[in-house]
Amino acid sequence: MSRRYGLGERRIIEIITNLQKKMPNSPLPFGDDVSATRIGGGRLAVLKCDMLVGMTDIPKGMSLRQASRKAVVASISDLASKGVKPTAIMTSLGLPRNLSENNIRQIASGLNSGATEYGAYVIGGDTNESSDLIIDVFAFGVCMEKDLVRRGTAEIGDVVAVTGDFGLTALGLKITQKNLDAPGKLRNEATRALFMPKARLMEGLALARSHLITSSIDSSDGLAWSLYELSRSGKVGFTIDTVPIHQGVKEFALKRGLDYSEFAFYGGEEYELVVTMNRELYNKAKRKVPSLKPIGRATRNQRLILRSGNRIRKIEPRGYEHLIGP
Amino acid sequence: MSRRYGLGERRIIEIITNLQKKMPNSPLPFGDDVSATRIGGGRLAVLKCDMLVGMTDIPKGMSLRQASRKAVVASISDLASKGVKPTAIMTSLGLPRNLSENNIRQIASGLNSGATEYGAYVIGGDTNESSDLIIDVFAFGVCMEKDLVRRGTAEIGDVVAVTGDFGLTALGLKITQKNLDAPGKLRNEATRALFMPKARLMEGLALARSHLITSSIDSSDGLAWSLYELSRSGKVGFTIDTVPIHQGVKEFALKRGLDYSEFAFYGGEEYELVVTMNRELYNKAKRKVPSLKPIGRATRNQRLILRSGNRIRKIEPRGYEHLIGP
Repeated sequence: MSRRYGLGERRIIEIITNLQKKMPNSPLPFGDDVSATRIGGGRLAVLKCDMLVGMTDIPKGMSLRQASRKAVVASISDLASKGVKPTAIMTSLGLPRNLSENNIRQIASGLNSGATEYGAYVIGGDTNESSDLIIDVFAFGVCMEKDLVRRGTAEIGDVVAVTGDFGLTALGLKITQKNLDAPGKLRNEATRALFMPKARLMEGLALARSHLITSSIDSSDGLAWSLYELSRSGKVGFTIDTVPIHQGVKEFALKRGLDYSEFAFYGGEEYELVVTMNRELYNKAKRKVPSLKPIGRATRNQRLILRSGNRIRKIEPRGYEHLIGP
Repeated sequence: MSRRYGLGERRIIEIITNLQKKMPNSPLPFGDDVSATRIGGGRLAVLKCDMLVGMTDIPKGMSLRQASRKAVVASISDLASKGVKPTAIMTSLGLPRNLSENNIRQIASGLNSGATEYGAYVIGGDTNESSDLIIDVFAFGVCMEKDLVRRGTAEIGDVVAVTGDFGLTALGLKITQKNLDAPGKLRNEATRALFMPKARLMEGLALARSHLITSSIDSSDGLAWSLYELSRSGKVGFTIDTVPIHQGVKEFALKRGLDYSEFAFYGGEEYELVVTMNRELYNKAKRKVPSLKPIGRATRNQRLILRSGNRIRKIEPRGYEHLIGP
C-alpha cells in the first residue's frame, strides 16, 4: 500500500520481477491487480497479497480495528475488480512488543470483520515481533478463467465507468490529518469513507460474470492512477467528460474555492471500480449495477484528458507514490 | 518465525484465533502447520504464510539472498510436511528506505531460488517501505484431501522417525553468532546448514502419497518442539531412544564436554520432517525415503522422554519461543 522509497516503487518492482523465473503459460502477467495459477477444469486460483505498514498506512484517528479491517478490504477489492469471490484470507502480522491484549483484540476483530463482511473467512496466519505494525493480508479465491477481467484489455471506443462517486476519502483525510473543518453531516460521511471503506465485491462479480466489461481495476491509488494503469496496460487513452465527484464534496470545495477535481482524481484509498465496456452494453451493465456512472471513453490517442465544456486539461498520472515521495 | 513478545506468542495466537468466525466444515483446524480450503473434486487449496523479520530472523553472516531464499524454503517446508507440492509463491516485502539496488537484487534472487529449487514460481507480491526488513512469504499448493497428512493424528505404538540428522544448524549458529571455533570441514557444513537450509519436499510428498504415515510436522522450531506439538495435538507421548545427531556435531560436542542432545533437540531452523507411522509400515517407508531414521515410539502416557541405556530424561517442550523470549 505505501509508496515511499529512495529507489522508487516502480523501479523496485521491475528489479524484483525481472529476477523471477516466469511460470510457463501463466494465465496472468506480472503487474495485473492479482496473481493467478491454473488448477484444472478451466479454473484459476487467484491470489493477492497486500501489506499495511502502520507508520505510513494508518491515518490519524483510525483505530487498530479499522486499520486491520481496511487491510482485508483492500485485498478483497483487488479480487473484486477481477470478478473473483474471495473465500479464504490469511494474515501475517508483525506486532510491536508494546501492543496490549486489547490492541491485539482490536486487530483480530478487524480482520474478522473485513473477511466476513464479504463472505470470506480468515483461516490462518503467522505472528511475529517487529518494530512497525505490519498487517499483511493474503486473499484467495477461485474463478473460471473465462470470467477473469483483466487490466490491459480496454478497447478503443469503450465507455469508461465507475461504480460510485469519489472525493469523500480525500476530504476525510484533509479533515482528520489537516484539521480542515466541514459541516457535521459531510464530516461524518467523509471520515466514515476513510475509516470504514467498502469493497465493490457484488458489483465486480456481477459485471464479470455477465461478461459485459472489457477491463477493470480498483481505485485504491486514486482515480487518476487507475485510469493511467488501464491506459498504459491497454494501450488506449481516456477522455473524461464527467468528474465523478460526491455532490457534498463538490459543494464544499466550490464554496472554499478549491478545485474539486483534485478530490476526485488524486485521492486514493477509495475502492470504487473503474471499468471499460462496449458502449452498446452500457445500459445492460447499468441494470446489473445501478451505481454505475459513465465518465468518458477510451481513445486511440494514449493520453488522459479531462474535458469540461470547451476546457481541456491533462489528467496527471499520479497517485499515492507521487504524493508522499520520493 | 520469530517468537518474542510481551504477551507470549501462544496467547496472542489464541486471542486472534478466538475472534475469527470459523469456516464451516473447515478441512483443517487452526493450529496445524498450514491452512486449507476445499476447491471441489476432493481437492484442497493449501495455504501457508510465514514472515521473516530482519532484526530477529537473520543470523549474523547470512546474506540478504540467503535470507529471502530461506524465507521461501521455510514456507515450502510446511507444505512438504503435509505432503503438498507448492506451485505458486507470493511475497510481500517491507523494505527499509536505505536498501540499495544491489540489496533488492539479492532479495529478489533469493526468492526466485527458494521457489525454483522446489519447482514453484514466484507469481506476484507487494512492496512497501518499512523500518524493519520484512519478507513475508505466501505459499500455495493443491492436494487431494485424502493425501493431506495432519499434525494431530499419531497413534499409540507408532514409530516416530525423522528424515535426517539434527544439530548442524545449532552448531552453525554457535559458530557464527558466538564465535565458537570448529574444524574447517565441520564449520563449513554447519554454516551451510544454517545459511542454505533445504526443505524435505520429495520426502514429504513420497510419504504422504504412499499413505504410510499417520502424522507429520517439520522441525523449524526444533526437534523437541516438533515432538511436543505432535504430542499435544495427537494426545500421545513419545519415548525417544535414539538421538538423531549429526556424527560430526556429536564428536565435536563430546570432545568439548558439551551435551550433544542440546544440539539435536533445541536447535530450531532445521527443516527435517518428524513423522509417525505404524511400526509394520516402517520398512516400506524407509524404502521410499532412505534417509528416514526411527528415533522412538508414541506412547499412551503423554510425556516426552529420552531414554539412553538405563538413564531417563525429560525432553523439555521448548524451542525458539523459550530461547529468546519473552
